[in-house]
Amino acid sequence: MRILIVGGGGMLGQKLVTELAKTGQLVGKKIDQIILADAFIEPKIPSGASFEIIAKVADITSNGVAESLVGSKVDIIFHLAAIVSGEAEADFEKGYRVNVDGTRNLFEAIRKIGDGYCPRVVFTSSVAVYGGPYPDIVGDDFHLQPRTSYGAQKAIGELLLNDYSRRGFLDGIGLRLPTICVRPGLPNQAASGLFSNIIREPLVGLEAILPAGKEVTNIFASPRSAVGFLINAATLDTSLLGDRRCLMMPGVAASLGDEIDALGRVAGARIVSLIKEERDPFVEKMVANWNPPPFTSARAKALGFKSEETFDEIIRVHIQDELGGEIPGLEK
Amino acid sequence: MRILIVGGGGMLGQKLVTELAKTGQLVGKKIDQIILADAFIEPKIPSGASFEIIAKVADITSNGVAESLVGSKVDIIFHLAAIVSGEAEADFEKGYRVNVDGTRNLFEAIRKIGDGYCPRVVFTSSVAVYGGPYPDIVGDDFHLQPRTSYGAQKAIGELLLNDYSRRGFLDGIGLRLPTICVRPGLPNQAASGLFSNIIREPLVGLEAILPAGKEVTNIFASPRSAVGFLINAATLDTSLLGDRRCLMMPGVAASLGDEIDALGRVAGARIVSLIKEERDPFVEKMVANWNPPPFTSARAKALGFKSEETFDEIIRVHIQDELGGEIPGLEK
Repeated sequence: MRILIVGGGGMLGQKLVTELAKTGQLVGKKIDQIILADAFIEPKIPSGASFEIIAKVADITSNGVAESLVGSKVDIIFHLAAIVSGEAEADFEKGYRVNVDGTRNLFEAIRKIGDGYCPRVVFTSSVAVYGGPYPDIVGDDFHLQPRTSYGAQKAIGELLLNDYSRRGFLDGIGLRLPTICVRPGLPNQAASGLFSNIIREPLVGLEAILPAGKEVTNIFASPRSAVGFLINAATLDTSLLGDRRCLMMPGVAASLGDEIDALGRVAGARIVSLIKEERDPFVEKMVANWNPPPFTSARAKALGFKSEETFDEIIRVHIQDELGGEIPGLEK
Repeated sequence: MRILIVGGGGMLGQKLVTELAKTGQLVGKKIDQIILADAFIEPKIPSGASFEIIAKVADITSNGVAESLVGSKVDIIFHLAAIVSGEAEADFEKGYRVNVDGTRNLFEAIRKIGDGYCPRVVFTSSVAVYGGPYPDIVGDDFHLQPRTSYGAQKAIGELLLNDYSRRGFLDGIGLRLPTICVRPGLPNQAASGLFSNIIREPLVGLEAILPAGKEVTNIFASPRSAVGFLINAATLDTSLLGDRRCLMMPGVAASLGDEIDALGRVAGARIVSLIKEERDPFVEKMVANWNPPPFTSARAKALGFKSEETFDEIIRVHIQDELGGEIPGLEK
């Protein structure tokens, strides 16, 4: 089995390939090769894999690149490449070029192979496809009314994925990811970064800015859960999806205040005291339009997608997976 | 005031320009010029207008054409151009090229003018953006799950319209049109043509084929109502729409059987006897996925959009507007 990960240099792509390098299989089938493609950075290759891993700097918005990536008829494609929300809002043209044209280039490259080729395509969409006003709890039939260009671009990707799947050109599944939290490493331009920053930085003894009110809410799942979503999506029986190929993943609903309370329970008041309130009008304006309520994610749960149940758990997963089980901030 | 009608050679564009030629104004403002653009045919110019009407064969999927159409900063743009459902299903590439790329070219041409230019853009979407499974009655918050490429393309157009409006590039409003019925003239490639054929042909004494079961349902409004929708959309206060720029228009829910019953009441049994049942598996497969239930269209009704209340009325409007108040089939 051969796997292509588009956006393989990003946080999620790297975690996914690391996990696959460990297990060496998917759906009980041996992995023979993984191609990591990324437009921006040469993807890192994890050590210890029993199969070949190839890393390529390759931009699917450039002519012919998507064709060359899928040309060898890979079996499974993870399409994780995207311009994130903050940048897509700041650079309108770049957002559409990467998130819409790039996605369509990839799907077109697959379609044009023809000859019965119909690979599994796992596409990461986002909770950003939704928008208010919301009911108290959002079911699987609630409409998509994105309030950001990023959300609109992801919703367009979903429509393409559904239509290309219905027409038999690919076997798609789209995952509306909650905000991934705690996001390791340096902040990226995702506007949702603030939800991670206030946990990640204090845990290592650094100050963090709280740029918006504590009442601001979001839906969260850990990077570990996100990798689990991707693997479940790559392996499940898509005939169970019918023509509705995109699913809101499960997650934990929490406000910034809930996050801080959870941090206090898991790491103590000294760690929490590293969070400094300092409002940022740009961030406040952006998140004012979000505040999603809880989602039932009923279809996804029935199909075996699992996330954490509490924000405390999300913080503990971060401490286990990123900090070796310790809280460095407590030592300082 | 200057108006551009893209798709001005089509049935709806022609009815719209004919109406505007009569009234000579919109929002109480005098019309100075209308540009009719159509990719496929030279649009006909109605007689008797008190202002200039220009007809152009112009394809917005070709480089630079959208720019040249909007370059003179028209005040209102009606974007009616589309590849209809049957053809978009038969020719995948053409459907995306016209319905997605054409729409985006038009919106991009507007955006690139910049300089505060923000014209009203009235975009015809379709009930085809929906898809089952449905609740018994569909509210304004029901999700879009198109079951045709045409529906997917229209839903993408809606997302673009919303996002370009939110960003201040244009002042958009999208109308999810019910199936326009009775459609005058020759059948086009819209898969929904069957709903019109079984009324239009018998009324003039011609046989018509009923290619699917009488239980097949749809939502209908007359061409006269559709022109009313367009004019209301061009003139209403879009601040009432918030960020949700697209609305399901009101219409009459009816099955093929209901249509035939209404035809009997309006025109008599002899006219109805001209309908011959002859199943067409291709049509049956296509319409099997439709069968939309009634829609509340609550937002549209609150904003002044009005349709007929019964299918009898729809037939009477056709007889008045297209047949001079007579039923030619009765003479034969």
